[in-house]
This record gives sequence, C-alpha cells and structure tokens, in this order.
Amino acid sequence: MPLKWSGHVMERAFELGALDCYFTSVQMKKNRPGILLSILCRAEERPVLSELLFSETTTLGIRAYEVERRALERRIVAVETQYGPIDVKVAQLNGHIVKAMPEYEQCRQAARNANVPLRVVEEAARAVFDKRN
Amino acid sequence: MPLKWSGHVMERAFELGALDCYFTSVQMKKNRPGILLSILCRAEERPVLSELLFSETTTLGIRAYEVERRALERRIVAVETQYGPIDVKVAQLNGHIVKAMPEYEQCRQAARNANVPLRVVEEAARAVFDKRN
Amino acid sequence: MPLKWSGHVMERAFELGALDCYFTSVQMKKNRPGILLSILCRAEERPVLSELLFSETTTLGIRAYEVERRALERRIVAVETQYGPIDVKVAQLNGHIVKAMPEYEQCRQAARNANVPLRVVEEAARAVFDKRN
Amino acid sequence: MPLKWSGHVMERAFELGALDCYFTSVQMKKNRPGILLSILCRAEERPVLSELLFSETTTLGIRAYEVERRALERRIVAVETQYGPIDVKVAQLNGHIVKAMPEYEQCRQAARNANVPLRVVEEAARAVFDKRN
Amino acid sequence: MPLKWSGHVMERAFELGALDCYFTSVQMKKNRPGILLSILCRAEERPVLSELLFSETTTLGIRAYEVERRALERRIVAVETQYGPIDVKVAQLNGHIVKAMPEYEQCRQAARNANVPLRVVEEAARAVFDKRN
Amino acid sequence: MPLKWSGHVMERAFELGALDCYFTSVQMKKNRPGILLSILCRAEERPVLSELLFSETTTLGIRAYEVERRALERRIVAVETQYGPIDVKVAQLNGHIVKAMPEYEQCRQAARNANVPLRVVEEAARAVFDKRN
Repeated sequence: MPLKWSGHVMERAFELGALDCYFTSVQMKKNRPGILLSILCRAEERPVLSELLFSETTTLGIRAYEVERRALERRIVAVETQYGPIDVKVAQLNGHIVKAMPEYEQCRQAARNANVPLRVVEEAARAVFDKRN
Repeated sequence: MPLKWSGHVMERAFELGALDCYFTSVQMKKNRPGILLSILCRAEERPVLSELLFSETTTLGIRAYEVERRALERRIVAVETQYGPIDVKVAQLNGHIVKAMPEYEQCRQAARNANVPLRVVEEAARAVFDKRN
Repeated sequence: MPLKWSGHVMERAFELGALDCYFTSVQMKKNRPGILLSILCRAEERPVLSELLFSETTTLGIRAYEVERRALERRIVAVETQYGPIDVKVAQLNGHIVKAMPEYEQCRQAARNANVPLRVVEEAARAVFDKRN
Repeated sequence: MPLKWSGHVMERAFELGALDCYFTSVQMKKNRPGILLSILCRAEERPVLSELLFSETTTLGIRAYEVERRALERRIVAVETQYGPIDVKVAQLNGHIVKAMPEYEQCRQAARNANVPLRVVEEAARAVFDKRN
Repeated sequence: MPLKWSGHVMERAFELGALDCYFTSVQMKKNRPGILLSILCRAEERPVLSELLFSETTTLGIRAYEVERRALERRIVAVETQYGPIDVKVAQLNGHIVKAMPEYEQCRQAARNANVPLRVVEEAARAVFDKRN
Repeated sequence: MPLKWSGHVMERAFELGALDCYFTSVQMKKNRPGILLSILCRAEERPVLSELLFSETTTLGIRAYEVERRALERRIVAVETQYGPIDVKVAQLNGHIVKAMPEYEQCRQAARNANVPLRVVEEAARAVFDKRN
C-alpha cells in the first residue's frame, strides 16, 4: 500500500473492531522495503477486516493464525489534579495493582491547556493516585 | 522518551514550525531499543524546538547539523471529482510537471463520506487532473 | 548469517518454492542486531526449505507455525501502451476488480528502454487498462 | 515499557528459562513507536514468563501461539589456539558438520587479553578446528 | 560486520571515548540487510575510533561530519530509598529542574536484591527526590 | 515512493554514479511509515542524482550535507579454489592486511555451479588466500 495510506487503514481497522493494529518494516525481494500490517481481532471481526485489507491496500494475500490472549483486569479511577480531572487506568495481577496509567489523551489535552510538558501532568495524576492507594 | 509521548512531541514540533519530523528506531547500549527523533527546521526555529525536546522528552543532549535543502516548486490545482472537489498538489522540475498528488486529508474525508476505498477517490482526482493537462 | 549472504538465501528460497520470503530487523541479546528470516511456504516445501536455512545460514534452530491464507483471485490482462505491451495483474474480490497492477519488471524494462521514469510507464498501463474496463 | 528497562526484562527472561528473546520495532496508533517483545519458551515456563511481562513492563495484554521447533544437534569441541583454549560449537545436519562456531564470549575475552581484533581470534579457532576435521 | 560482533564493537567504542554509539538497521543493495554503526565523539577521539571500526568490522569506508551538541547541565543527587541509596541524575534548563532520572544500574541491582520490579525501585527513588525538592 | 519502485531507484542511482545507496525505515506524521533514501556521492554527481530522485520518487524535497570519507586502500588478489577462480578484495590499514573478502557474486555463482552452500566457497577462497599470505 502506498505509505501515506497507512494511517487511513489503521484508523479504519480500529473503527471496524480491531483490538490492535501495527506496522512492521520488513525487507522484501527485489530490494523492496515492505510494510507488514498486523491486526489482532476477534474471530467474528475477521471477515470485515480482511475485506478492509483487500479493498484499501495493494495486498493480494492475507495470513491468519490464532493467538491466545491473556490480559490484565483493568478499571478506571478518576483523580483530581491541579490540571483538571484525569482518568487513571489501573491494572491488577493476582489482586495487586501492578500498573497505574494516566489516560494519555486527557493528559495531552490538559498539558496543552496549561501549557506545561505532558510529563508534568502525567506525574501529577500519578502522584494523586498514589496518595489515595 | 516513553514511547506513548512520541505522537505528542511530533505534533508540537509541527506546531512550532518544524518542516519535517520523524522517528527512527535504533539499538543503543545495554540492550536498549532507542527512538531517534529527527527534526528539520529553519535556523530561527532551532531554539524553540530545542526547548521542546528538552522539556517534553527524556533526552539530555541534542545534535544539530546544517543541511542544504532543494525542493520542487509546488502549486495547488483544484479539480472537481464525483466525490467532491479535491486539491491536487502539482510539483514541477525544469518547467515540467513531475508529480501530481491529490491532497491526502481531502481524499480521506471524501472516501469516508462516499464509503469507498481511499484509492478510488485518489484515482478519480488523478484522472480528472490528467484530462485537463 | 553474515548480512551479505541474505540476498542469496532469499533467491534460493524462492527457487525452492517459497511463496514469500522477507527479513525483519530485530534486536537480540548481547547488543546484537539480528535478522529474522520469514518464509511462507506450503507444507510439502517445508523440509527442503528447512534444509536450505540450516545449510546456508548460521541459524541453529527454526520455528514453524501454520497460517491460514486467503488470497484474491488473480488474472493477467495484457495491454498495449506507447512503451510497448505490459501485463496488468488484476485482482478480484466478490466479483469486482479491486486492484489492477501493471507488472513491475516489464514496466521497469520499458522505462529503461524509453528513458522515462518508471512511474510514467506504470501510469500509461493503468490508463489503457482503465479505458478498457 | 520505558525503553531503558528493556535490557533488564530481556536478562530476566533468560534467567527464568526463555529459549530466545528479542525486540522488534513497530509503529503503533497515535504516532507511537512501539517495541514488540517476543519470547520463545517451553510450555512450562509460560506462566512465570507471563508474570514477568506483566510486572516488569507496561503491557496490558500478552499473545501466545505455539510454534514447532526444529534444531540442529550441537556439541562442543575444545580447540587450543595461540590465544588460549576456545570452545567451538559444532552443529550437524544428517550426520554432516554444517556449522562450526567459536564461542563468542571466550573469543571476546581472548581478544581483549591479547589486544587483537575479535575477528583474529575467531579465525584462529576456526583454522585449528578445520585442521582437525 | 557479522551481527554477533556488534556488542563487542559497541563496548570497545565506549571504552575508547565514544560519547554515544548506536546501530540502525538499513536496507542495502543486493537484498542485503545492513547495520549502520553511528558513533558520536570529540574530534580528538576520531582517529582511534576510526581505527577501531577498520580493525573490528568489515567496513571499507567511514563517513564523518560535524555536529553541534547542546546538552543540559546535569548533577547527581543521592537519595535514600527503602531499597537502599540511589543516585538521581538531575538535568536543568534555564535554572529549572526538567528531568530527574534515577540511575538505571543501581535501580536494577536494588530491584534484583529486593526481588521487586525495576519500576518499583525507580518510583521509590523518584518519590523521595520529589519530596526533597 | 511506492515501495515496489525502490529497487529500481537504487539500481539507477548506482548506474548514475552513487557510491552508496540505502533505505532506512522511519515513522512519519499521520501514522505513516516512511522510507528514507540515502545516497552517498561525489559533489559532481549531485545534480544528476537529485534529478533522479525528483523524477523517480514522490519526494518533494531533498536534503544534502557534506561528509568526509575515509576509506581503506583496496586491491584485488585472484585465488584459485576447487570451485574455480575467485577474486579476494584485500584492504590494508597502515600497511597491514586488515580484511580479505572473497568477491560475493563470484562466490555465489560458484556455489550455484557446484551446488554447495555459499559459505563453503567463501571459506575455501579465504583458506587459499591465507595460505599465500
């Protein structure tokens, strides 16, 4: 697929139910750089996503294989920071909190509004969350 | 810089006047994958973009060198397609048209509206343009 | 495998029946860049291709897994351009033409003969094909 | 995972029984570079390695699939070089020696001791081995 | 250079005074994957590092160009955590602290000793540092 | 440039006098994978190679900077192996042979003719060369 279409295909894939989508740069025959498009999806979304790939890209073939997926339990905890409210995604393993991740788009928006680095907002959200737990 | 901040830094770089901005994956010491952030800018934007890198990323050092830049002359030609009006970016070399590129975001929007592949809109724009020239 | 042997291994893989073959750059232990060689093949070609990898590369182990492959139906349509005859590979999905791709090596040869950019020949072939359909 | 942690995760993976571990650079949504961490392991190590990924990285999900693995038979042959003793890893396919690889860390150490390029020690080990076989 | 030598060359480069050293995967002629080795150094180290590249790698040519380098001022602040003492590297821009980074190797060692994820030690060091400032 | 044209551009670049040419995968704005095409050339070839890039690729701009190049002295030594004559490229640093590299294409051809792995021919050429020196 022409490289500039990639963003469009990725965006459409997520809209059509892809759980994940990413590009890997590979090296193909005849000195061609290639872009491998990988999509993770549920079995029921496979036909519609295959159709997407066949209509939006230049690929002539698609390869599929099953993967077993294990995900952490997640929940959202809202915290109040000096830059406004931020959702923190909390992931647990065997009943312990192993990760607390302030929601990226909210941090980004808050950082723009307050004109501070993204990092500052993220750390503020993390600090408030840590104090509560 | 944590990987998920990359999009934010890139977006900010363009807002602050970067002419180009891209990431290259590299392999650093201690088995660390690294992301090299390259920015092309005019001399006058260099201080503000350096400041951006120092505040938004974890980098401790920035390297700069001058490049000479040669660009094709460009103009925009609007064409009318069955999917609506699309701007075509035309580039000339020694007085000849060497490239005609339908504007990506407009094609993308038109493709979504008409529910057709991006490729179809792009080809339509190209066809109309070719007939005129 | 020493990097310069890669082209030879790829070429041999296609000769021995590989359906696809590509390299991915990875990062291995001890600060080593690595090259992952991926081959897609039918079950019956697997032994001979394994043998190839073991004799031509430095690998000590090969991993295999089954993939399900779905490919578009293809046929070749010959078109006559001002740069000579060019085959166009046509792919169909649910009875509709979704892709028409002028054959690369023929375009390349024709472009060299006429001393024009590859793009010009490809567009000419596409234009003739489109008019016919 | 923050990029600088990668070496630590890789080292821990090998300690916990991984047969192989490598990173691939990918391109994810929202203009994020991503690092795909791949681990090859026996079924019995899978739980402990999953736990490692969930505790040491920021990942929220892990995907697994079975691969069939075919490896060459290997044995170690010690050779005596002018730079000291070096083990040569010998791999056989159908009863023939197909590869003879001087052990990297030993060559590296010997090269440092003798203050010669690594290549020189490796070639010396190979030469002694070849003479014996 | 054979891929497995890379780590040795990188290690030697740092020993000989390189300020930075990293690998980039590129795609060369004849379908060869290539590894670009980049070294940042002061002018006075250039001869000895060139010699290193010529003796330890298979390269036949080296390219050099000057870069201007701007680095943040850094100092080390030692903090006392429940996992032991950790140095925090502090970087300043225009008199403000813009980054505080717990020293990686110390965190790694402390994490191994306490049998906790690396992240936990790093966050502890950061928290102590933040309270002091 | 559409990915499949890459090989053609690279081949043309070498024909027009490029000293080196390679592709690097980068990540651009709007979630686009990009291919950076790097060419090393003498000052006098720069105009014709710029023209090539502007006519054969979709790029709208080219960046250039000077590099200083230091190359090893090279000479060719022909050796006679059991697989036929093979040229060995010999490189010297300060009067010492630092590298001896059997010519790739000749080894490849000889390996095909004798139906042996490429490695075997290369090692044979190296062995004959070493005995002579």
